[in-house]
Amino acid sequence: MSEKSDIMQGMEEGASWAAGVDLGGTKVEVAQMDRAGRLLMRLRRPTDVKDGPAAVEAEIIAAVRELILRAGAPPVAVGVGVAGQVEVESGMVRFAPNLGWHDVPLQADLSLALGLPVVVTNDVRASTWGEWLHGAGKGCDDLICLFVGTGIGGGVVSGGRVLAGCSNTAGELGHMTVDLHGPRCHCGNRGCLEALAGGWAIGARGQEAVRDDPVGGASLLQMAGGQREAITAETVARAAQAGDPLAARLLEEVAEALIAGSVGLVNAFNPCLLILGGGVIEGLPELVARVDQGVHQRSLSAATANLRIVPAQLHNDAGVIGAAALAQRAYAETKAQR
Amino acid sequence: MSEKSDIMQGMEEGASWAAGVDLGGTKVEVAQMDRAGRLLMRLRRPTDVKDGPAAVEAEIIAAVRELILRAGAPPVAVGVGVAGQVEVESGMVRFAPNLGWHDVPLQADLSLALGLPVVVTNDVRASTWGEWLHGAGKGCDDLICLFVGTGIGGGVVSGGRVLAGCSNTAGELGHMTVDLHGPRCHCGNRGCLEALAGGWAIGARGQEAVRDDPVGGASLLQMAGGQREAITAETVARAAQAGDPLAARLLEEVAEALIAGSVGLVNAFNPCLLILGGGVIEGLPELVARVDQGVHQRSLSAATANLRIVPAQLHNDAGVIGAAALAQRAYAETKAQR
Repeated sequence: MSEKSDIMQGMEEGASWAAGVDLGGTKVEVAQMDRAGRLLMRLRRPTDVKDGPAAVEAEIIAAVRELILRAGAPPVAVGVGVAGQVEVESGMVRFAPNLGWHDVPLQADLSLALGLPVVVTNDVRASTWGEWLHGAGKGCDDLICLFVGTGIGGGVVSGGRVLAGCSNTAGELGHMTVDLHGPRCHCGNRGCLEALAGGWAIGARGQEAVRDDPVGGASLLQMAGGQREAITAETVARAAQAGDPLAARLLEEVAEALIAGSVGLVNAFNPCLLILGGGVIEGLPELVARVDQGVHQRSLSAATANLRIVPAQLHNDAGVIGAAALAQRAYAETKAQR
Repeated sequence: MSEKSDIMQGMEEGASWAAGVDLGGTKVEVAQMDRAGRLLMRLRRPTDVKDGPAAVEAEIIAAVRELILRAGAPPVAVGVGVAGQVEVESGMVRFAPNLGWHDVPLQADLSLALGLPVVVTNDVRASTWGEWLHGAGKGCDDLICLFVGTGIGGGVVSGGRVLAGCSNTAGELGHMTVDLHGPRCHCGNRGCLEALAGGWAIGARGQEAVRDDPVGGASLLQMAGGQREAITAETVARAAQAGDPLAARLLEEVAEALIAGSVGLVNAFNPCLLILGGGVIEGLPELVARVDQGVHQRSLSAATANLRIVPAQLHNDAGVIGAAALAQRAYAETKAQR
């Protein structure tokens, strides 16, 4: 390739970017991403869900317009990740509990207002796109992302495609039953992975343990300022790191639950890569090695022959990067079809 | 379309068939299948695994040749389902415990001997192809087959593709952990779905129950001819059907385990259809309605919006039909590429 065409390609690449939007209950984050998955600029705005969908949409539109103004050129497309249930083609937000939304045509509204192609997807699905195309999963076509935060969600890439399922809700990996006699989950069922290893569950187990064993739980209670209700997953993690045996036992149970859930995932999906992310994993990074060892010991050997278990790489940026990457890919596909 | 071309198409269709082979530890079944998925002829031969792979391959070759002779024309392709771990492109049988095989190049051997395209796959995967293309899953592109026999296996179709995974072992649905404190499984892990609801486990639970409660277990023991070791899943099913409360309690636990496992599958994969098959389901068909009810109660409502749970339709023919259907499809794809 001549020097000149190299330069031209470089210019073209520099000019081509996608916008990624991560829409949560308290803020919206909008970012400019180049073709290589690098974030060049980002804006954050508070969202006030009480004002209704139109006001939140107006914030997104204003933020994307500001990004375009600063970038000096429009993006090829806009990708949006939203914490809720999203219809696959239309990008209609069927239900988003944190936003209080029912049947909001977010994709159509944004596309009309911005005059740009827009793709709306679920936030965890967006993070899966991010880790797959630009994070820990780069170059791998069979992987699972398991995000262990306050709740547990995930996404599955199999044979080079992100699985969507029948009504676009595939990947609710936190609601696999791992202990059918286990504790009640927020979803109404019992013994879900999330009810044993999600952040809210770790906090709840900590509170219960202190109630049931005030002597053993004294140091955990002290770490929460003497308030039992103030014990969170983070308190439990700090207590364990400070050598508290009760907190260590609780985290042992968390590890066992994560191993059980991961073994099920590995046997059912046979991924090459299991990517562990989310706040609980970031707060307790030693869990990755623990799960790795447990999964390799307890899964079918044929299913773990080529398996690696690694931490997520994009952290809080997975959502915007993934949303932008999905938009970029959707646009490239549209262009290729023309 | 003119009458003449109709007739010609009919003739062409009549002439086009695929061979399906179901290779087990004690017999091989070979069948002729037309394009509509109908079995026109079938042959069964005993296999003696003690004689080694070459002898078993010779049986298959002889049976397919006999089929060709009787049909008066060769098949478009031959599909083989084998109980074992199969490499995806090469059709190499990596490990087949029932046959005592390690690294047998079955696909290459059969293709060379028969001079025909051959596709080898895992037997449960073959049954999934069968139920998908010609059984209970016809016309559906997002489904799960859960086969509950002595062991439990399955297959997943997502977005119109049978999932293979990283090393072609996706679908080991019997080895999802549903009770992390549960009983030991044959795979070495604890609390697998199979260890609670597979045929061998139901028999084992029956034997344990009679040992632990000789009075309550008297009628179950009697049904097994007074021999505790003779209690099988079938004994437990018969006893429950005869009104025995201990057997009924055991089956209640089986139903609970199947519901827990199915809820996990539905939340993780979000299928449109969950197909339940295998000997345990055929012996206890009331389990289908039970699982249906439990899954709809306990799964995420978004995941069950379009879900139906139905019994498998092809029974023991799923393997040969699926193997033949896979061969037919693989051949059609090859032809289309030319």
